[in-house]
Amino acid sequence: MNKMHKNASKKLKIVLDVSKTVSSTLDLDTVNDLILKKAIWALGTDHASLFLPDDSGKHLMLRAAKGFTKYEMSNLAILESWERINLQVARSKKPIIVNNLKSHAIFKKEKLPFSKKELPLNSFLSVPLMAKKNQIVGVLIVSNKKGHPNIFTKSDKELLMTLGNHVSIALLNAKLYKGLEDLFISTIKSLANAVDAKDPYTRGHSERVMRYSLAIAGKMELSEDFMKWLKLSSLLHDVGKIGIKDAILGKEAKLSMDEVKIMQQHPIIGINIVSSIIGSERIVRGISDHHEWVNGKGYPKKLTGDKISLEGKIIAIADTFDAMTTNRPYQKKFTSKEACLEIARNINTQFSPEVTRAFMRSFSEENHIWCMPSDLNR
Amino acid sequence: MNKMHKNASKKLKIVLDVSKTVSSTLDLDTVNDLILKKAIWALGTDHASLFLPDDSGKHLMLRAAKGFTKYEMSNLAILESWERINLQVARSKKPIIVNNLKSHAIFKKEKLPFSKKELPLNSFLSVPLMAKKNQIVGVLIVSNKKGHPNIFTKSDKELLMTLGNHVSIALLNAKLYKGLEDLFISTIKSLANAVDAKDPYTRGHSERVMRYSLAIAGKMELSEDFMKWLKLSSLLHDVGKIGIKDAILGKEAKLSMDEVKIMQQHPIIGINIVSSIIGSERIVRGISDHHEWVNGKGYPKKLTGDKISLEGKIIAIADTFDAMTTNRPYQKKFTSKEACLEIARNINTQFSPEVTRAFMRSFSEENHIWCMPSDLNR
Repeated sequence: MNKMHKNASKKLKIVLDVSKTVSSTLDLDTVNDLILKKAIWALGTDHASLFLPDDSGKHLMLRAAKGFTKYEMSNLAILESWERINLQVARSKKPIIVNNLKSHAIFKKEKLPFSKKELPLNSFLSVPLMAKKNQIVGVLIVSNKKGHPNIFTKSDKELLMTLGNHVSIALLNAKLYKGLEDLFISTIKSLANAVDAKDPYTRGHSERVMRYSLAIAGKMELSEDFMKWLKLSSLLHDVGKIGIKDAILGKEAKLSMDEVKIMQQHPIIGINIVSSIIGSERIVRGISDHHEWVNGKGYPKKLTGDKISLEGKIIAIADTFDAMTTNRPYQKKFTSKEACLEIARNINTQFSPEVTRAFMRSFSEENHIWCMPSDLNR
Repeated sequence: MNKMHKNASKKLKIVLDVSKTVSSTLDLDTVNDLILKKAIWALGTDHASLFLPDDSGKHLMLRAAKGFTKYEMSNLAILESWERINLQVARSKKPIIVNNLKSHAIFKKEKLPFSKKELPLNSFLSVPLMAKKNQIVGVLIVSNKKGHPNIFTKSDKELLMTLGNHVSIALLNAKLYKGLEDLFISTIKSLANAVDAKDPYTRGHSERVMRYSLAIAGKMELSEDFMKWLKLSSLLHDVGKIGIKDAILGKEAKLSMDEVKIMQQHPIIGINIVSSIIGSERIVRGISDHHEWVNGKGYPKKLTGDKISLEGKIIAIADTFDAMTTNRPYQKKFTSKEACLEIARNINTQFSPEVTRAFMRSFSEENHIWCMPSDLNR
């Protein structure tokens, strides 16, 4: 009796620990990773894997696994019998223990493209992950139990089922958060696209500037938090163009001096538009500073060097690169290498040295075209 | 020993139950409510309350309570000694048990504006809610323990501390979700405002249409999910105006027939803009249908009755009401009552009867001006 209570107590502690850990974030990839890590720990197995809905949300497929070598993973991915049994768990909403895959009827019929010695797993325990209303959100599998006897028991099954109830909630919450994030970003993208489309020469401009900006920031190893705000800021860097008359915005001929002055108001108009957004100070910087030059000859505030925000310095390069490599009236179109070298030539006058170097590295790696900081010294 | 394990087991089960329940949603108000409900249940008390950050996020204050009568709540809200002790819990990050408030030094100094008999609580247990990095996210209090002896013990304190660790995570996740929701809506609002501002006569129009639309939907008791999408759809109902030349959009003089035709393209342009948004079908309906008439004389598709989406029917009334009650060129400004009655007069030709009635009820209640469905029969 005492031992039974002690065991029960131990299991509850495990469930509580897992539950707390997997709920500690809303980042979907991290939640998936924590679920696998904790399942391996709680059940004492070699590896764990997750079947989750694909991008259409209609089909479950192997989406995450832990504890396998790369070679085992490639064998696992083509192990049909294993996949079929796990999908059966989802359909029947009932857990399954397979303690010797080799003797399983479904497996016996399978023709393996690798030797039986290289079977990535022998035994596994697979439980359905259920949300409210009995809806399946995934399948959690632990495989190859360690120790002696190395078979999965009824008690293991009960433990993983209980864990499953808790990790399902964490999984659903993270999915809900990601869904909102995706809706948010896709809404901003479509609105930024609509602003770009006011000028036939800038179609798709904002999305490309976002992509280049994130690539530069990635090379600079900036924080995830910085990247999140940079994403918004770069998508919205030209939002102020909503407020520019389309006679000027879409003008094919060269702009007059007065028209240029009006056009150069777009960062200021942009600041006014986003200023009522919650936390707007993080978005404003990139919008306000993306036409400033480090030598103070930019606009609208003629800021110099350190006075220009990092967001502004990054978007400035991404923006210029996109403008040079797309068709624009009254300007020759550069090849991407020419554009990269042109940006490098304007280091320290127009562009920040640190950000320029990061841009050159990111450009060279992504395009497999040599445009490296070392070229600057020649 | 056996009893100890049994008790430990029982407590773990309680914690597990509470943890699962409070994580089951990301809606902040619901999470707060579940925390209070479960704390009362787990500790066996009369009531529970939560100190949470105010809107500035800088100060903790009593934000939610459960189990008190209205009268007790009003006394609780002015019970200074209780507030001071709870804020001390937040500052010191240490739990406090007060088993007899009347004998507490801080209380003794307090001058009560009500009789001591009406003290809303005698005893309480207050624990700090902590997030990662020891950051305080709130204070959870249970008060008036039931049963005998009705005092809070060390064991109660340990239980509520453990519960606190789990509910803090749920609270933080719900706050994170709400933060993203608020950022999303405020971003869409500022962009909708920027589109409205292209025409000096439509400043603030989209936000008002959103408010009226939600009021109508509220009266129709539509689902929360419907309301969430209606919020987006109504904010973006005129987004297609980004694509209309500002010579037409801002024209003071009467539009020519050709210009009217161009202007009437804005729902179609709007659909194109939002069509790449994830889940856009839910947003599209209100944008595409908000100028349709139930008799088929609207635009752009000349849909009739049931063919018009509910979102479109709701936004149509909200949109017309705002246009009538704000200054517009070439149209007299109506008082709000005149506008309401004018909408009522167009029931069954321009507007859906069901939605018109809901609008009239919502208008009458919010403005305390009589414009009721019964007027329609006169």
